[in-house]
Amino acid sequence: MNQQRVDRVLARFGEKGLEQALICDPLSIWYLSGYYTEPYERFFALVLSARSGHPEATLFCNRLFPDASGCCDNVVTFSDTDDPLPLVAAACDPTVALGVDKDLTARWLLPMMDASVASSFVLASDVVDGVRSIKDEDEKDLMRKASLINDEAMKWLAAQVREGVTEEEIASGLLGEYRRLGAQDHSFTPIVSFGPNAADPHHEPDGTVFHKGDMVLFDVGCKYDWYCSDMTRTFFTAEPTEHQREVYETVRRANEAAEAIIRPGVTFAEIDLTARHVIEEAGYGQYFTHRLGHQIGLVDHEPGDVSATHDEPVRVGQIFSIEPGIYIEGDVGVRIEDLVIVTEDGCEVLNHYPHDVRILEV
Amino acid sequence: MNQQRVDRVLARFGEKGLEQALICDPLSIWYLSGYYTEPYERFFALVLSARSGHPEATLFCNRLFPDASGCCDNVVTFSDTDDPLPLVAAACDPTVALGVDKDLTARWLLPMMDASVASSFVLASDVVDGVRSIKDEDEKDLMRKASLINDEAMKWLAAQVREGVTEEEIASGLLGEYRRLGAQDHSFTPIVSFGPNAADPHHEPDGTVFHKGDMVLFDVGCKYDWYCSDMTRTFFTAEPTEHQREVYETVRRANEAAEAIIRPGVTFAEIDLTARHVIEEAGYGQYFTHRLGHQIGLVDHEPGDVSATHDEPVRVGQIFSIEPGIYIEGDVGVRIEDLVIVTEDGCEVLNHYPHDVRILEV
Repeated sequence: MNQQRVDRVLARFGEKGLEQALICDPLSIWYLSGYYTEPYERFFALVLSARSGHPEATLFCNRLFPDASGCCDNVVTFSDTDDPLPLVAAACDPTVALGVDKDLTARWLLPMMDASVASSFVLASDVVDGVRSIKDEDEKDLMRKASLINDEAMKWLAAQVREGVTEEEIASGLLGEYRRLGAQDHSFTPIVSFGPNAADPHHEPDGTVFHKGDMVLFDVGCKYDWYCSDMTRTFFTAEPTEHQREVYETVRRANEAAEAIIRPGVTFAEIDLTARHVIEEAGYGQYFTHRLGHQIGLVDHEPGDVSATHDEPVRVGQIFSIEPGIYIEGDVGVRIEDLVIVTEDGCEVLNHYPHDVRILEV
Repeated sequence: MNQQRVDRVLARFGEKGLEQALICDPLSIWYLSGYYTEPYERFFALVLSARSGHPEATLFCNRLFPDASGCCDNVVTFSDTDDPLPLVAAACDPTVALGVDKDLTARWLLPMMDASVASSFVLASDVVDGVRSIKDEDEKDLMRKASLINDEAMKWLAAQVREGVTEEEIASGLLGEYRRLGAQDHSFTPIVSFGPNAADPHHEPDGTVFHKGDMVLFDVGCKYDWYCSDMTRTFFTAEPTEHQREVYETVRRANEAAEAIIRPGVTFAEIDLTARHVIEEAGYGQYFTHRLGHQIGLVDHEPGDVSATHDEPVRVGQIFSIEPGIYIEGDVGVRIEDLVIVTEDGCEVLNHYPHDVRILEV
């Protein structure tokens, strides 16, 4: 177990009035214990307890999983034909509430309720997610490195745009480029959108063929030593029309205005509204259809989004995306996204690929 | 909506005393509606109701998802800043129980309970999973095709084994071969295990180098038009020792004995125990550490396993794996796996790659 991280989580138990919690997000378990497995449909959980007489951490593993004994002092194993719930019940105090992971599925939660494993069940991912949200120095370095690789990958992507290439062809080559650059995997399915496809913020790369003049949007990220990057750039391939340039510059100003106001104490909502205000003032408010951003770390989307309804202040060490966009169906789509780390007096932008209008030579 | 499938699900409502259910497995939603999206952390659900005055099917989609209006008459949309739970509450009758998907996470289930969306909450995936379990003729054809591709892929895999190659090198080339054969993707991360690695049933391909004489285990599957294949073969690369041959032949006999007894009415447990008995009789019972198999279809592992504790009878149209294994740590690991469809009078084995001892020329 990573005792420092466990201690930070247990400190949050106190704040929340919790005495025990069951964590099942495999990455949260890895974050706290150094043990990783992908359990698929099998039961896998870490029970944390602040109750005297209970071990602080107990890990529940199917015997088919890799051996966990080097990662946790208390590993409870079971086979495919065992019911793990009585084992969990034995590790919990039925007279107090059990905090549960937001990812715990009904398949396990409803039987736990039926078996009265605890006096009540409350959402408690926040005790771990809140700790994961504040990156330590090693994590920041890995996040910086993942974003540096992403900056390099964006150069490679821009160089792939040529008459007749398809979105799929460019997207399918990206993993090889990430690996050449030292990353291990995508952090999410890459978005490559040509022309009007860019106006669909969640367009998936397909057989659409590039023709000179199309705008091109890349929203991509890699995983480097467990940590994720995520960046978007939108390119021109001919001199932009006045309308296209206005849309592009509006998004760019929204991105930069939001990044400029970030410092500890500013709320996520204020950051979202700063970008949103720039876009609304330019008359495009209805075309900015999503939240401004999301936290990121071991997964691309971590809890605590950058949205108008999230009124908590940002804290030093948090990392999130700033990704305003304007999507006018059948016309134009632009998004410009960076990752930032909140610092003592502002923020550090992890992406260095420029924001200015770029017209690719194709 | 696929009305025939919806009707089969609603018929199961009656059997279970259910009047409404919330389904959130994206593949179950696709199976019933023809609409697919990967919602990640966003809310996505299909509410089915047998209550008069309620629509039979209501689909809840974030506005960022692709348009679903062509797939369902009642689509309720919401944005990232809306709370979808009041919308779900409006579609449910709070005076009766709500069946919920086994995959519904605590993140949504606990607030639904707090909001008293229904009078109680019961696990109800079975109403859909039980319908998905019985494949129709079109599904059987796709499953046959996926397994034929897997048979071809096994020939390709066997041909890749050569002095100095690593597990990872073979595994990383498989997707390209699947695509050449007409499949779209892996159905799970392929297992390629050399020598003693085969004795770990969930070994992941790594940098282990092949040397002539190593046994080689491949457990692989592809997706063809949404449907999955899954097959394991274990090869020799030198004349087997008597011990190796005995282990291999024991697993082969266990596989074939299990396949031989399958017909409607036999229970999953009886099939498991038939294979297990062969292995126990040969003195290797302790080394067969997992269930005999799992159902398969839109995902590699579907509910309803082939295990000693599953005493339901198999039914015509069900498809599952038969995959006995013997794993002796540091020594030898063998698994032989086929998929079978239950027919009126027995079963159809979907894999045609032979079971007999094969010594690869390397």
